[in-house]
Amino acid sequence: MGVVVPLDGDDSSLRKPAQAGVARADVAEADVNGAIERLHALVRDDLEKVNAAIIARMDSPVSLIPQLAGHLIASGGKRLRPMLTLASACLCGYSGARHIGLAVAVEFIHTATLLHDDVVDKSDLRRGADTANVLWGDQASVLVGDFLFSRAFQLMVADGSLSVLKILSDAASVIAEGEVMQLTTANNIETTEDAYLDVITAKTAALFAAACRIGAVIGERPKPEERALESFGKNLGIAYQLVDDALDYSARQSTLGKTVGDDFREGKITLPVVLAYGRGSAEERRFWRRTMAEMGQDETDLKRAMSLMNGHQALNDTVERARHYGAMARDALGIFSDSPERTILSDIVDFCIDRAY
Amino acid sequence: MGVVVPLDGDDSSLRKPAQAGVARADVAEADVNGAIERLHALVRDDLEKVNAAIIARMDSPVSLIPQLAGHLIASGGKRLRPMLTLASACLCGYSGARHIGLAVAVEFIHTATLLHDDVVDKSDLRRGADTANVLWGDQASVLVGDFLFSRAFQLMVADGSLSVLKILSDAASVIAEGEVMQLTTANNIETTEDAYLDVITAKTAALFAAACRIGAVIGERPKPEERALESFGKNLGIAYQLVDDALDYSARQSTLGKTVGDDFREGKITLPVVLAYGRGSAEERRFWRRTMAEMGQDETDLKRAMSLMNGHQALNDTVERARHYGAMARDALGIFSDSPERTILSDIVDFCIDRAY
Repeated sequence: MGVVVPLDGDDSSLRKPAQAGVARADVAEADVNGAIERLHALVRDDLEKVNAAIIARMDSPVSLIPQLAGHLIASGGKRLRPMLTLASACLCGYSGARHIGLAVAVEFIHTATLLHDDVVDKSDLRRGADTANVLWGDQASVLVGDFLFSRAFQLMVADGSLSVLKILSDAASVIAEGEVMQLTTANNIETTEDAYLDVITAKTAALFAAACRIGAVIGERPKPEERALESFGKNLGIAYQLVDDALDYSARQSTLGKTVGDDFREGKITLPVVLAYGRGSAEERRFWRRTMAEMGQDETDLKRAMSLMNGHQALNDTVERARHYGAMARDALGIFSDSPERTILSDIVDFCIDRAY
Repeated sequence: MGVVVPLDGDDSSLRKPAQAGVARADVAEADVNGAIERLHALVRDDLEKVNAAIIARMDSPVSLIPQLAGHLIASGGKRLRPMLTLASACLCGYSGARHIGLAVAVEFIHTATLLHDDVVDKSDLRRGADTANVLWGDQASVLVGDFLFSRAFQLMVADGSLSVLKILSDAASVIAEGEVMQLTTANNIETTEDAYLDVITAKTAALFAAACRIGAVIGERPKPEERALESFGKNLGIAYQLVDDALDYSARQSTLGKTVGDDFREGKITLPVVLAYGRGSAEERRFWRRTMAEMGQDETDLKRAMSLMNGHQALNDTVERARHYGAMARDALGIFSDSPERTILSDIVDFCIDRAY
C-alpha cells in the first residue's frame, strides 16, 4: 500500500510505495521517474510558444491586469493542462499551430478559476507565494479572473472552431457548477464519496478532459479517439485532485510551498475526511462534526485530524482510489497505437499520483 | 437646463427639463413619455420567450444556482439590454428565432457582471432588494456569476455564429478591463473626465453596443448598418451610465429602490465628482480629497457633497453630457429608413436620459 507521510507520525521518511496489485504491475518505477521531464521534452518548443503567447495575451493597457495575472501565471505553475493539450495534439499527429492558442485558452480558464478559488477560499498562499487576493485584494482578483476568462474565449474565437468552443464552454460551465456544488457541501460532514466525486469531476476533471480532447479535435481524429482522450483527461483529473486532497494533509505539502491543513481549516470536505468520518467511532464523528461542520477548531485539532486519518488509512486509501482512476486513464489510451507520445502521457498518470510521496 | 433634484435642496419638486438647444429641438416631449412601454410592446412576444429561456437556461441540478441567479434576474430588472437586441433585430427585418438565445446570452453576461460588481463594491441593495452577496455570500455570487458567464457562451456556441461570438467575447473582455480600470481609479480624485469616459465606455457601453450590433449581424445587414447599431448602442450606453451616476446623488434614486450616495460612500469617482472637484475651490478640493481619496467620511459629508455638486451644476451638467451622447446615438440611427422600430429605439434614448427627472 502506498503511504502518505503524516506530519506527526514517527514514520517521517519519504517512502516509495510498494506495488499495489495488478493495476501497477506493468508500470516500471524507472518509467515513472522523469515522466514530467519527458513530457516537457516532448512539447518544449510548443510550450515556449505557449509561454510567449500567455505573456502577450494577458497584456492590457490597464497595467494591474498583467501585473496581477503575471504574478500567478509566472509563479511556477506546472502548465500541466496546456501541456496536455500540446501532447494530445502531438499524439494525434497534429502539425499545425492551433494547439498553441488553445493551450493558452486552457491555461487562462485554469488561471481564472484559481483567482476566483483563492477569493472564495480566502487562501493566502499558492505555490509558495502570497496569493493575488492578498497582494491586490479580492476585488482585483475577481475582475482579472473575469478578464482572463473572456480572453480565453477570444482565443477560441480566433481559432474559429465551434467544436472546440463547445467543448471548452461546456467545460467552463461544468467547472462553475462544480465550484458552487463544492460550496454547498463545504461544511457538510455527511457528504458521500459519490457526492465528493461529482464535485471533483466537475471542478477539476472537466478541464483536464477538455484540454486533452481538443488535441483530437484539431488533429481531426475520429470520434472514438476524441472520446478516448476525453476519458484519459477526465480520469487523470480525478486522480490528480484526489492526490491533491491527500497532499493537503501530508508533510510533502510543505515541501511544495503549500500550507498543510488548508482544507481542514476551511472546513472543506475532501475524500480523506469522508473516509475518516465514515470509518470513525461515534466519538471521532463528534470530532469531525465539531471541527468541519461547526468549525469549532483549536490549534491541536489539525494534528488530531491527521492522526485519525492515519489510523483509518484515509490518506493511503485516497491515493489508492486515485490509482483506480489512473488505471482507467492509462487504459483509455489503449485505442492509440504504441508511440513515444502515448508512453509519455501514460507515465504522466503515475507522475500525478506519485506526487503524494 | 435640466435639473437633477438634490436631496437637500429646497427645489424638491420633480421638474421636467427645459429644452436644451438644437439637440433636443426635434424631440417632442409626448414621444418620450411611454417610450419604454412602446419598446415593450414592440418586443412583447419575443421578450416572453427570452424570459422563459432565461428561467430554463439558468437551471442547474445545483439548486443554489437557480436560487441565486433567479433572485437577481427576477428582481425587476428592466431587461433593457436584451430588449435592445430584440428591437435591433426587429429594425433589421430579422424574422428567425436566433435573437431569443442571443438576448438571453446578453442578459446573462450583464447579470454575471452585476453579481461580481456587487461583490467588488460590497453593495447590499440592488433594485430595492438585498443583493445576492448579502443573502448568499460573496463566494456564491462570484461562482454563480462565473456559471452565468459560461452559460452565455454556451448559448452563443449553440447559436453557431463566430461573428456573434467574436462581438460578445470582445465585449466581455472590454467590460472586465473597464471594471479593473475603474478599480484602479476608484479613489483617485485626479481622475479626468476622459479617463472616466474610458471606464464607462468599457464597463457599460461595450455591452450596449454589442447587444445592438448583433441584431444587424443576424439580420445579415451590410457592415455600415452593423456599425450604426454598434454606435447607437455605445452612445446610448454612455448616456445611460452618466445618468446612473447623476442619479446616485439624486432624490429620484430612493424612489427607484436604490440608496442615495452609494458611489460616494465607496469613493467611486464618477463624473459629478470629477466636475465638482474640477470646478471647486481649494477648500472644496480638500473636502473631496478627504472624503473620496482618503475615505475619511462622516455622516454630514454626503449632504455637503451634494450641496457642492448642486452649487457647481455638476449633476445637471452630467445629464447635459448624457444628452450629447444621446444625440449621437439618435443620429447613428439615421442610416436606417424611417420606421416605427427606428422611432422606438430613438425614443429610448430620451427615456434613458429622462430617468434623471
